[in-house]
Amino acid sequence: MTDLSHVDGLLTPRSVAVIGASEDVTRIGGRPIAAMLKAGYKGRILPVNPKRETVQGLPCYADIDALPVAPDAALIAVPAKLVPETIVALGRKGCKAATLFSAGFAETGEEGEAAQRELVALAKSCGMRLLGPNTLGVYNVDIGYYGTFSSSLDTGYPLPGNIGIASQSGAFGAHLGALARDRGLGSSILMTTGNEADITVADAIRWMAQSDGIDVICTYMEAVNDAPALLDALDAARAAGKPVIALKSGRSIVGAQAAASHTASLTGDAVVADAVLRAHGAIIVRDSEAMMDIAYVASKKIFPTRDTFGVITVSGGAGIVISDEAERIGFAMPPMPTEAQTRLKAVLPYGSPVNPLDCTAQALNDPSLLEKFTRAALEEGGYGAVLCFFTYVAGSPAMSDIILKAVKPLREAYPDRIIAFCALGEPEVLKEYDDQGILIFNDPCRAARAIHAICGFRQAAPRTIPSAPPVTLPDTTPDEAGAKQILAGCGIACAPELAVQTVEEAVAAAETFGYPVVMKILSPDILHKSDIGAVKLDLGDADAVRAAYTDIGAAVAKHAPDAKVSGMLVAKQLSGGVECLMGINRDPAFGPVAVFGLGGIFVELLNDVAVQACPFDAESAREMILSIRGASILKGARGQSAVDIDALAQMLSQLSMFAAGAGDRLVSVDLNPVLALAEGAYALDAVIEMEDR
Amino acid sequence: MTDLSHVDGLLTPRSVAVIGASEDVTRIGGRPIAAMLKAGYKGRILPVNPKRETVQGLPCYADIDALPVAPDAALIAVPAKLVPETIVALGRKGCKAATLFSAGFAETGEEGEAAQRELVALAKSCGMRLLGPNTLGVYNVDIGYYGTFSSSLDTGYPLPGNIGIASQSGAFGAHLGALARDRGLGSSILMTTGNEADITVADAIRWMAQSDGIDVICTYMEAVNDAPALLDALDAARAAGKPVIALKSGRSIVGAQAAASHTASLTGDAVVADAVLRAHGAIIVRDSEAMMDIAYVASKKIFPTRDTFGVITVSGGAGIVISDEAERIGFAMPPMPTEAQTRLKAVLPYGSPVNPLDCTAQALNDPSLLEKFTRAALEEGGYGAVLCFFTYVAGSPAMSDIILKAVKPLREAYPDRIIAFCALGEPEVLKEYDDQGILIFNDPCRAARAIHAICGFRQAAPRTIPSAPPVTLPDTTPDEAGAKQILAGCGIACAPELAVQTVEEAVAAAETFGYPVVMKILSPDILHKSDIGAVKLDLGDADAVRAAYTDIGAAVAKHAPDAKVSGMLVAKQLSGGVECLMGINRDPAFGPVAVFGLGGIFVELLNDVAVQACPFDAESAREMILSIRGASILKGARGQSAVDIDALAQMLSQLSMFAAGAGDRLVSVDLNPVLALAEGAYALDAVIEMEDR
Repeated sequence: MTDLSHVDGLLTPRSVAVIGASEDVTRIGGRPIAAMLKAGYKGRILPVNPKRETVQGLPCYADIDALPVAPDAALIAVPAKLVPETIVALGRKGCKAATLFSAGFAETGEEGEAAQRELVALAKSCGMRLLGPNTLGVYNVDIGYYGTFSSSLDTGYPLPGNIGIASQSGAFGAHLGALARDRGLGSSILMTTGNEADITVADAIRWMAQSDGIDVICTYMEAVNDAPALLDALDAARAAGKPVIALKSGRSIVGAQAAASHTASLTGDAVVADAVLRAHGAIIVRDSEAMMDIAYVASKKIFPTRDTFGVITVSGGAGIVISDEAERIGFAMPPMPTEAQTRLKAVLPYGSPVNPLDCTAQALNDPSLLEKFTRAALEEGGYGAVLCFFTYVAGSPAMSDIILKAVKPLREAYPDRIIAFCALGEPEVLKEYDDQGILIFNDPCRAARAIHAICGFRQAAPRTIPSAPPVTLPDTTPDEAGAKQILAGCGIACAPELAVQTVEEAVAAAETFGYPVVMKILSPDILHKSDIGAVKLDLGDADAVRAAYTDIGAAVAKHAPDAKVSGMLVAKQLSGGVECLMGINRDPAFGPVAVFGLGGIFVELLNDVAVQACPFDAESAREMILSIRGASILKGARGQSAVDIDALAQMLSQLSMFAAGAGDRLVSVDLNPVLALAEGAYALDAVIEMEDR
Repeated sequence: MTDLSHVDGLLTPRSVAVIGASEDVTRIGGRPIAAMLKAGYKGRILPVNPKRETVQGLPCYADIDALPVAPDAALIAVPAKLVPETIVALGRKGCKAATLFSAGFAETGEEGEAAQRELVALAKSCGMRLLGPNTLGVYNVDIGYYGTFSSSLDTGYPLPGNIGIASQSGAFGAHLGALARDRGLGSSILMTTGNEADITVADAIRWMAQSDGIDVICTYMEAVNDAPALLDALDAARAAGKPVIALKSGRSIVGAQAAASHTASLTGDAVVADAVLRAHGAIIVRDSEAMMDIAYVASKKIFPTRDTFGVITVSGGAGIVISDEAERIGFAMPPMPTEAQTRLKAVLPYGSPVNPLDCTAQALNDPSLLEKFTRAALEEGGYGAVLCFFTYVAGSPAMSDIILKAVKPLREAYPDRIIAFCALGEPEVLKEYDDQGILIFNDPCRAARAIHAICGFRQAAPRTIPSAPPVTLPDTTPDEAGAKQILAGCGIACAPELAVQTVEEAVAAAETFGYPVVMKILSPDILHKSDIGAVKLDLGDADAVRAAYTDIGAAVAKHAPDAKVSGMLVAKQLSGGVECLMGINRDPAFGPVAVFGLGGIFVELLNDVAVQACPFDAESAREMILSIRGASILKGARGQSAVDIDALAQMLSQLSMFAAGAGDRLVSVDLNPVLALAEGAYALDAVIEMEDR
């Protein structure tokens, strides 16, 4: 088990020192104390303030050295310039973890960033870990610990419960906490990480993955500051069977350098982050409401093994609306078995027994229909989740007791299925269902989306990450032949080709391959060869090869007179198949990232690419390839024959292994086009950019 | 003003007869009476039941003839078999509009449908209009009229207010009503139309468009049963400045007949309905929650002229999340003017003055920042709508008075702008903002979506529908040359071409056009010519023309020996440009519908088409063309030159006029491909299918 004692100190302290403690309950140094007193913090609050004898009725200490014990946690609410000496004193006292509310560091510019770096180094030398700076702090409802100055508490305290929140942004994290509370959801832990100078959301996720009290983890990130730790934390959460619901904001481009290369311009870092986090089992959302909806479903700790959806309604109209939404999000709604349909048709001739199952308004006269149809959906339909659109019928005081009684045995009989109601009515009436483990939504489409996310949770098998053997790169960026040679060494197939130095060598090579052939200039200085006429296709005989040799030479002499030329490349011209592209770019957070797409409009207009952090195995590569919108083209849409997706997947995985093994000097790889044939896949062009040694 | 006296009778009756009145308040004949008594209906309730002297304390009449007055409305709650005599009696008494709760008609099959048709005819002969059958009825909160047996009232009564609901589905309509109520939204009118044997949602929308009390119209439809009336109603609502928020469910295919043709398989009728309703100003949603969100925004009756979005936050994180969502939905967030940025930067150095504007947590210490930033967004930013992410800060009792006082003058100073808060806290605190005209949401992304819908409302200019002159179709389906001749007569350009009868005529035609040319068989019996080798491209000289003539003849003799052949078509081969397709299909609700798409994968894999009901002008055609995802290809993406979109739009509009003028015998038109060139656009193939006379 990973050592998370520093997070223990932050989240479950037996004692907390408040440095800069204030009598004023609206000040940063006063709010946490007031909150803890009000919430009945089970530990010891140790105010530190040289100017006071007591603070909010508690004995106050003049300085850190005067504290009676080494505090488990320390809240630092002093001006930035006093922070270093505070840290030294805390370290001397034996404190292991401090929360740094103080702002005025990295968020203010370069100078602040330097100060922040020094602070972390200082803390490290004192044996301490830091949360923040510029953090709103943490809370742990279960022990009444409020190491936070969030004014969200002015609108009420969070409810205890099995949802944990880890947020980089303080205010957005507190918003999530308040949102949970206003919905009646229990979230015992909030940890906001601010500037993440040291401790990141990854630590919080890791801690919650190990915590007995937390079953669902919500996280908000703007930047991924420690990718390996984050992925490790996600893996730990998944291994513990706890869904992580993640919102990564920001759609900026991977980075100026990477953006210059073709494929990079298609891959915003949020897209990369989403792909990587998803591969590690995270459920990706883009707003706080969807996050809370999914957390609510997950909080019941039912993760069906089947990702199928049964819908029971008292309104045919609602059934259609829900089916429309289910289809849109890809939530399968298989029909009821035929025998069950026949049986239900006999029970209610004008209802619909298929899926959605419609009990019609007849259910008002005969409430047993609600139970019969719901039971049938669970028993005979076998759906992983059922949504009962009972709206105001379920909320009606006259009906709710009957329905509650009817649904209770179902809840018990199918402990592994999600049962949700779309219900309207007084909150107290609806709460009775919720208390029985029936999920309550007032919008059926929102319910469908949240339930779908959780039904898919167990299905997402952990990804096996292969180990990538180190690759030795040449000292400088190679030319195309050199690039292909390197890739061939890693198992990436190129079209048969030969580098030649004379026109007769070119003809000889062509004769060996058989016509038609392709010829291109070989030069590490010319990256976009066809733009200057240094590529000739469809050369059908020796004369054509000779003419092309001359023409390419002339074109290079004219357009790139200073380019270093190492000869020409003669390659067998492959035809047919489907043109794809594969590439590697460096993501500032996740390192080398592979991109796959079809050529042409799919990439250029539709941005239809899949991305994944390197390395990954062929199975993951296959998933990536099949995830693009145009994948049906590879499977043989439009009357052409299917291509060798296995070969493509193999190549993409090999490319990812190469990138992971190549280290930091690798800037980018561009295999464009890669020709996928009925059998095999070949890189027809290859550019490897690297930093010169 | 359209005569809507029958809807007046249904929605604002001074008296209502309840036929089949019941003492039992849970019965269909008892519920409405109980509801009206409870709500204090301002009119006269006239129970009719031969078996009782009184019903629920009211004097009861033995039969309709015994009623003291001709009732404005009648609620029919008797078994299906007694309905005809009831209608006759009501007509005799002078009643003009009856609500038919009784089920057992069209929804039960053919027999019921016939009975329903007879009922409408009977009612008509008695001078009456019918709501239903199989309807849940109507309510009008303002006069306490509850002509409904909906059990939604068991969970509480709707609140009075300016939102009206017209729903085909009874239960879904009542769900919408209950949803509005649970959110605290006032919706005075609900009308559910059930089987729509006579009165449809169009009547309800039309009535609400004229009603003083209703400013926002929500409508739910499964089928469009009277398209002209619906479009007329939408136009009336738009003319009255009232948004119609429409949910049309169901994704079924246009119809079996149309599905057989190529383009039809791409056009589900919900897609057609969405396009047509949108063209008539409706705001299209796909779930009840989005409907209520938008209705809430619209209920404040502020429709900004600028469709721009300013965001003010106390959390940088939330600002990013909101910006991500705004970009996704296409809600423009232009930056603040430079001078304003400079000024705000001076006020708050570590905030962000761009857009989103971030006041940071500093706003807690200095609440005036909230006002300053919000005012700047309205005054200097000039945004049509501002969203203030103040979360629990706005909900905090300590802050809410200060914020309320600060925002009030802004609300008054900018009456034409939407001001919304994302706020969390106690409902009573939040309601104070709402009472001041500040919209309150708890999720900022939902707020952005709803506000965007309303900001776009005023921008949607009414569509001018051109009048389509009648077109005379030939008696039978024409061959390609005939089809093109008909289209040419309507101004649709085809490639220069000539029908020929001999090989030498073919050569002569080719010489006239200049090579290369295309040759095809001319036969009304062969629709897919290239499949059988009856099309030859790239014919470069006279010999090639002669060979093609022979080959096509042989191919037809072999594969379609029975086809009626009228010669061959020689056409100039156009090249370059972009291949598009245009088509016409018949929609069961809206008649001829035009489809536009790019050729190839855009249509076949991506379903990237635009549809619109015919006829429409070139401006609407242009909008359609530019609305497809691949439109940038037409504008010159991927390094090729832009094509003549005006010519395409002209052609598409002409095609729509042709289709509208051609009448019911026209089954479909398929122009595939249409070649769009840098100048001009030409149909290279044309198939017109029609019913033989």
